[in-house]
Amino acid sequence: CVTKSFFLRKWVRDVWEFAKEDTNRVIFALKVGLAMLLVSLLVLIQAPFKVFGTNIIWAILTVGIMFEYTVGATFNRGFNRAVGSLLAGIFAIMVIEIAMCSGHVAEPYVIGLSIFVVGAITSFMKLWPSLAPYEYGFRVTLFTYCLIIASGYRMGNPMRTAMERLYSIAIGGLLAILVNVLICPMWAGEQLHKELVNGFNSVAESLEECVKKYLRDDGSDHPEFSKTVIDEFPDEPAYKNCRETLNAAARLDSLASSAKWEPPHGRFRHFSYPWPEYIKVAAVLRHCAYEVMALHGCLHSEIQAPYNLRITFQSEIHDAASQAAELLRSLGNNISNMKSSLHTSLLKRLHSSTGRLQSSIDLHSYLLTSTHSFYDCTAKPTDKLPNTLSLTLKDCSGPFPKQSSDAEPNPNPAVPIQAESYHEAMRKQQRRLYSWPSREVDDFEEDGGVDTDMIPHMRTLESTAALSLATFTSLLIEFVARLDHLVDAVDALAKMAKFKQESAS
Amino acid sequence: CVTKSFFLRKWVRDVWEFAKEDTNRVIFALKVGLAMLLVSLLVLIQAPFKVFGTNIIWAILTVGIMFEYTVGATFNRGFNRAVGSLLAGIFAIMVIEIAMCSGHVAEPYVIGLSIFVVGAITSFMKLWPSLAPYEYGFRVTLFTYCLIIASGYRMGNPMRTAMERLYSIAIGGLLAILVNVLICPMWAGEQLHKELVNGFNSVAESLEECVKKYLRDDGSDHPEFSKTVIDEFPDEPAYKNCRETLNAAARLDSLASSAKWEPPHGRFRHFSYPWPEYIKVAAVLRHCAYEVMALHGCLHSEIQAPYNLRITFQSEIHDAASQAAELLRSLGNNISNMKSSLHTSLLKRLHSSTGRLQSSIDLHSYLLTSTHSFYDCTAKPTDKLPNTLSLTLKDCSGPFPKQSSDAEPNPNPAVPIQAESYHEAMRKQQRRLYSWPSREVDDFEEDGGVDTDMIPHMRTLESTAALSLATFTSLLIEFVARLDHLVDAVDALAKMAKFKQESAS
Repeated sequence: CVTKSFFLRKWVRDVWEFAKEDTNRVIFALKVGLAMLLVSLLVLIQAPFKVFGTNIIWAILTVGIMFEYTVGATFNRGFNRAVGSLLAGIFAIMVIEIAMCSGHVAEPYVIGLSIFVVGAITSFMKLWPSLAPYEYGFRVTLFTYCLIIASGYRMGNPMRTAMERLYSIAIGGLLAILVNVLICPMWAGEQLHKELVNGFNSVAESLEECVKKYLRDDGSDHPEFSKTVIDEFPDEPAYKNCRETLNAAARLDSLASSAKWEPPHGRFRHFSYPWPEYIKVAAVLRHCAYEVMALHGCLHSEIQAPYNLRITFQSEIHDAASQAAELLRSLGNNISNMKSSLHTSLLKRLHSSTGRLQSSIDLHSYLLTSTHSFYDCTAKPTDKLPNTLSLTLKDCSGPFPKQSSDAEPNPNPAVPIQAESYHEAMRKQQRRLYSWPSREVDDFEEDGGVDTDMIPHMRTLESTAALSLATFTSLLIEFVARLDHLVDAVDALAKMAKFKQESAS
Repeated sequence: CVTKSFFLRKWVRDVWEFAKEDTNRVIFALKVGLAMLLVSLLVLIQAPFKVFGTNIIWAILTVGIMFEYTVGATFNRGFNRAVGSLLAGIFAIMVIEIAMCSGHVAEPYVIGLSIFVVGAITSFMKLWPSLAPYEYGFRVTLFTYCLIIASGYRMGNPMRTAMERLYSIAIGGLLAILVNVLICPMWAGEQLHKELVNGFNSVAESLEECVKKYLRDDGSDHPEFSKTVIDEFPDEPAYKNCRETLNAAARLDSLASSAKWEPPHGRFRHFSYPWPEYIKVAAVLRHCAYEVMALHGCLHSEIQAPYNLRITFQSEIHDAASQAAELLRSLGNNISNMKSSLHTSLLKRLHSSTGRLQSSIDLHSYLLTSTHSFYDCTAKPTDKLPNTLSLTLKDCSGPFPKQSSDAEPNPNPAVPIQAESYHEAMRKQQRRLYSWPSREVDDFEEDGGVDTDMIPHMRTLESTAALSLATFTSLLIEFVARLDHLVDAVDALAKMAKFKQESAS
């Protein structure tokens, strides 16, 4: 009994939390209750029931079927129901006329055949891809037709039956729409707007989280790639949001198609508001988010660049990523506030820090391969080259701090110091062997055909591991490159939706 | 009139093609027609109509609403409808009893209040995420409740009305299920099975296409990143399929939840067939597909490695990719034929060629950065190092063909030759300037704060361009690493679904 009351209390708390999280849910539930109550009054009160008769139950059915969460979806369903019922009614009356002309014997055959044909045609049509959104309309057409035909055949006076039902359906539909629009309307357009803005924020957050983890991860908690729950990374909430943004395509599409049905409202005042443009922006955003997914994949990849190497480029990577995130947030904010501002200064800063990241990678690129050449040459004492090589390395790395400080005002003077101390760190560093899928090692041993000796193989991996930093940075750079397209897409949206111009960036 | 007949003919041809593409569509349409005809016969023929009365129209409605494409979805809808109607019936009878006890004046108030409460509660519950699949059930409960209450109040004898309706609904439901199951049943499980296998094939094809384009692309048709139709790459059919595989998550989920309702059938004979396991395999496959998307992004990235460099690693990249695709296809085939075979030899070959790719990248890694050090040193004549450097390069590259031919039986003797002729090619090669977003150049010029001189900037880009090859290969290697998890997931599926064991690989 104690556990029971415990579960009950937990359950009540959960429901309360769920309701508090989005009070619109409660409002929606109350609205449905109200609409059902109002339509039931038509039956419960004597006067209207006398006027409409038993066919008024169709009004109840219509409210139950038509009432959707958003205004647009309700309009859409109402349209489907209205057109479907109307078509069914017209077609039913035509067929009944024909059947009555064809004589008493043929009549049931004509009716039966017509039901079969209507059933087959509507079902076939709703499979057609471009007609798929009207699936419900075809369903309504089909069963309304059958109902009118069948009850008309049995109860006589099909015309009157059909008209009364249409009236009832119209009353039900009107009631559903009035309640939905007049009492705390929930606009699909507003939701679409919010979800798009959320998408921008979640991609930005996910990018920052990813880069932060990449730079923080010192190998002590090398991420285990869980096999059973492949898509779960519980310690990365932003990643989950980003993946949800990627998977939200279908929901955004349906919101946009609902939004098209809505009249101008709230902040979206002018007619033919460009909702399809939102879908395009979302597509470009997804295109950027794919790159974040790849960065995340790089973060959890089995082959990792040594921490010391990653930390060398820390400030450049961090700068580029945080400025990219800032640009994303600023774009999201602009959409949210329906303002259009130029992002030139943000873009400039972003491009210059990306350029700095590139220069830095370029100037330090010997680090990405030096492990190899160093070990390769020392491993072969016959070559007698270690001295020459280390000289080369010193000479190549020498100019870097000078050139860097000359050419551009380096905001982080810590970087060159880090870069120099890196050589020390490199020597001290234990040669951590990165776990390229463990079974491979055995495979190589077993497989007689391909017998590469063990040592160079491991070395190869370590060297490739350093190259994984190049992968991470070039994915980041590609992400920044794609942001340009995103800026263009948002600009196009701002123009079409007539966002307020702002001169300041 | 000519154009009219032209369009008509085109339309007829389109419809014909659509029907021919999947004859199940026609069968489905005919089945719906038949089901509607059969249920209408209950009204059209005198005898059953006399037994059931006008309430038989509920059977028509039920067939119209319940009939779905797959058997599982029909069962699911039927379950929703049955439980919904039953709950509504029980609750309605209880409320009517209470209302009748409460006296004539209070009766309509009790009924009205109950309608409001039921409406609000069912609407709130269907927003609860774990109850969302039963959305239709809640809808049915709501309007059935209102219908029974309202017509019971007006027409008296609510018990009889309720029972007759439940009978009619049961008849309609039974008829829909019989037609759906007995005549050419379309199983959701079978579809899920097929779609999963298709997913494997489309990822494999997309991988091959991507790698083929990457190795073929000689810069003459540098892909234009179209801004307006961001997600369209008309010349890459497999990419589209791959993206569809990524977006199919929702459809697979709904197929799996339908498949759970289906009895053992066809090839899926044993009870509690592990359909949820299909979803898991699909998730791991998507995880692999993300990597293909990243490879595709790399292919269309603005920064590209020079063609000559790409061609150096041609055979290794091609081997690894084609063997990965082969493994994917073999896994897909295994699922398709419901056989379980060990993939050790395929995995071994794949791992060894991936290892070869890594070794090759490692040994040639100086190529990825040599442009920089070479130009860097020649550009600064004070350093007086070009001779030393070229010596180092020669010595480092020298051992490669020897070591390679010693250590492993190289299947392509063309590679070392290519690698050697590469130095020639490198010199002849024009310095193609890669179009890092064009506006950046202007930004750098305009931006007074960050004045990097132009030449090193461009050089940086070219050097980074070479590193983009490292990105491509490490993404490919990561893809191969993820295949291990896919093999595990497929093994788990094979075990749980009791696929036939095969000893041969």
